[in-house]
Amino acid sequence: MLKGNVIYGQSGGPSSAINSSALGVIEESLLHKEEIGRVFMMHHGIVGAIHDDLIEVTNEDKKELEMLAHTSGAYFGNVRYRLQPYEENPKDYEKILKTLIKYNIRYFFYNGGNDSMDTCDKMNRFLIQSGYDARVIGIPKTIDNDLEETDHTPGYGTSAKFIANAMAEIDLDNASYPEGRVIICEIMGRHAGWLTASAGLANINGYGPDLLYVPEIPFDMNMFLTEVQHVYEKKKRCLIAVSEGIVDKNGAFIFQVGKKKDSFGHYRLGGVGQVLANNIISELGLNAVAIEFSFLQRACCRLSSLQDSLEAEKIGREAVKQALKGTSGKMITIVRVSSKPYKFGFGLTDLMKVANYEKKMPRSMFNEEGDFITQEFIDYALPLIQGEINERFENGIVRSPRFKGFKS
Amino acid sequence: MLKGNVIYGQSGGPSSAINSSALGVIEESLLHKEEIGRVFMMHHGIVGAIHDDLIEVTNEDKKELEMLAHTSGAYFGNVRYRLQPYEENPKDYEKILKTLIKYNIRYFFYNGGNDSMDTCDKMNRFLIQSGYDARVIGIPKTIDNDLEETDHTPGYGTSAKFIANAMAEIDLDNASYPEGRVIICEIMGRHAGWLTASAGLANINGYGPDLLYVPEIPFDMNMFLTEVQHVYEKKKRCLIAVSEGIVDKNGAFIFQVGKKKDSFGHYRLGGVGQVLANNIISELGLNAVAIEFSFLQRACCRLSSLQDSLEAEKIGREAVKQALKGTSGKMITIVRVSSKPYKFGFGLTDLMKVANYEKKMPRSMFNEEGDFITQEFIDYALPLIQGEINERFENGIVRSPRFKGFKS
Repeated sequence: MLKGNVIYGQSGGPSSAINSSALGVIEESLLHKEEIGRVFMMHHGIVGAIHDDLIEVTNEDKKELEMLAHTSGAYFGNVRYRLQPYEENPKDYEKILKTLIKYNIRYFFYNGGNDSMDTCDKMNRFLIQSGYDARVIGIPKTIDNDLEETDHTPGYGTSAKFIANAMAEIDLDNASYPEGRVIICEIMGRHAGWLTASAGLANINGYGPDLLYVPEIPFDMNMFLTEVQHVYEKKKRCLIAVSEGIVDKNGAFIFQVGKKKDSFGHYRLGGVGQVLANNIISELGLNAVAIEFSFLQRACCRLSSLQDSLEAEKIGREAVKQALKGTSGKMITIVRVSSKPYKFGFGLTDLMKVANYEKKMPRSMFNEEGDFITQEFIDYALPLIQGEINERFENGIVRSPRFKGFKS
Repeated sequence: MLKGNVIYGQSGGPSSAINSSALGVIEESLLHKEEIGRVFMMHHGIVGAIHDDLIEVTNEDKKELEMLAHTSGAYFGNVRYRLQPYEENPKDYEKILKTLIKYNIRYFFYNGGNDSMDTCDKMNRFLIQSGYDARVIGIPKTIDNDLEETDHTPGYGTSAKFIANAMAEIDLDNASYPEGRVIICEIMGRHAGWLTASAGLANINGYGPDLLYVPEIPFDMNMFLTEVQHVYEKKKRCLIAVSEGIVDKNGAFIFQVGKKKDSFGHYRLGGVGQVLANNIISELGLNAVAIEFSFLQRACCRLSSLQDSLEAEKIGREAVKQALKGTSGKMITIVRVSSKPYKFGFGLTDLMKVANYEKKMPRSMFNEEGDFITQEFIDYALPLIQGEINERFENGIVRSPRFKGFKS
């Protein structure tokens, strides 16, 4: 039995699912009083560990902790900082080690996407090398659903539910008019179309997008315009979902903002919907308008998927249980047992198998024309958006935790 | 007692409240079998009456009718067509009269904003002149809340609730980062700031916008940049809500799309948030991003205000009750009895007092600097966003009515 304290960090574009996982880690940790004494959150992820900036939640009120489950953002602070390899910047690692020793941390949990699993993997290797006895576990999270080795990621179901429902409602709005608009909804997804594809789940109840375009399938502007015109002639309206990261047949983004990359080596995207709308106006003479779902698609957790929220909390608990059993250097995965009825379990994978890889959609989840989902995708994704949450409103407004020791 | 059938039409940018009012009209009409035999909906508002394009709902299933209450869009069809004065285009009026006679319509209800009350007023005058015995009642509806003579309008509470909650959640998301962004949310509102002001209701639970800009108060770019910098220095993030229709001290829009007016004489707006973001980037060197809430702020009825939804249904019922009592040529108004506790009743006003006027926010609902709401506004608006609705989802997706005789 390894006795010591817990540290947990959040990283990457957040949805409320990350806070559900934080809740799972905290609640499960507090159950095991023999092994675990205190529970600390890194303030702004790994940077909080580097600078000894921690938030202790051991004694926070249980009711306030539960408020985490449906709170937007990374409540304990997000970070855009990338941990360099040990050889290039050993100081960061030594500072983290100092923090771990100071608070007698023996359980290290890091919650995020592939970049975060890279950080987690680096920490794990460093701690093994330095002979510091600790268990390191990665907890997956990304609305993008682009992590390898896991059936899907916490956060995806919640954003997918927002997107699918927004599409249904925008289509109903557009259907009000005798001559509707061409509406293009631009959806997050740099290299993978999982979120854009989820827009198509709307159609199960009769309203939703007509065309979907994802980064996995090269985008052809002429073919696009032909398809839009075809839909508009038939329906007098057209609703389109498009990934921000669609590319042409040479792999170049259809639209990117400037030529500068961020600290993770990514171009800034956003605005491709407007480019398509402009082309529809000028080439087809139709009334076209672009909507960027922007932060709303990850922050509007009022429509969290109950299934996603429960899985996110459980995967946090599973991370603690695995660490207590002696597992280290692994990420928890979600394993699908069956789709009909939907059943899942948890598994483990090496952090390095996840770090820095991006899982693309299989071609078979899209039709031959490459502009709509197939039944295979519906069977995969529909279970993940099931169930609604009666959230905690106060004064008609969403309510986040009120901790004694911390305010976001 | 005037025996005959009912006709009802929808017009103007829709939120789910308009369908709640439709439900109220339909359900109340079906209660009075002695006077009212059949209930018809105009397909696409007044154009449906002109072209004898009606949808009969007399025998639709009650359960499906109830689905209207939380359905986005104008379910029976919206219209952008403006009825010209009788002298300029008598044909339209004669065609409508023919439709009324054909279906023995004696109760005429029209549901919309000020342009719609203008249509309703014209119809009323025409029917009096032509000696056709009918009762004409206007039912207010607009998310913009800019109708004269009524305390507020159905639809406002629902959009206000979406906006306030979205602001809280975007602020929580932005608060995740050690150095947040300047985020500018562009909100509907051509000449009145009611919707933008509602963004400030978020702050009651601790997260929300820092600055609000409305069309009623002249916008000064330099003062704006100074205020943004001030907030950012203090909080390391800044959240702004701005009306699409903000104007400079000469009354010119800060941004409009092109120089063409639509059929109601309005310029097309949208994009001012991006203009402000660009200025913040170039002048202050801060990371700024604009989000247009666009159709989401009126179509996302999953977060309908329960209060708004109930009022919208009741005002539809009130219209029918008044018409049966002999009232005609009037619009139903909402009369506030008290704010604490919130109590309301209904009143009546002349259609022409509402048609083509726009109610602005009183200056006292904004602070001296003109960049945030006062308690007076909170007391006014907060009661209107209270209560949540457990909506009818099916397969995890919102569900709209399934009528035997009509699909939107």
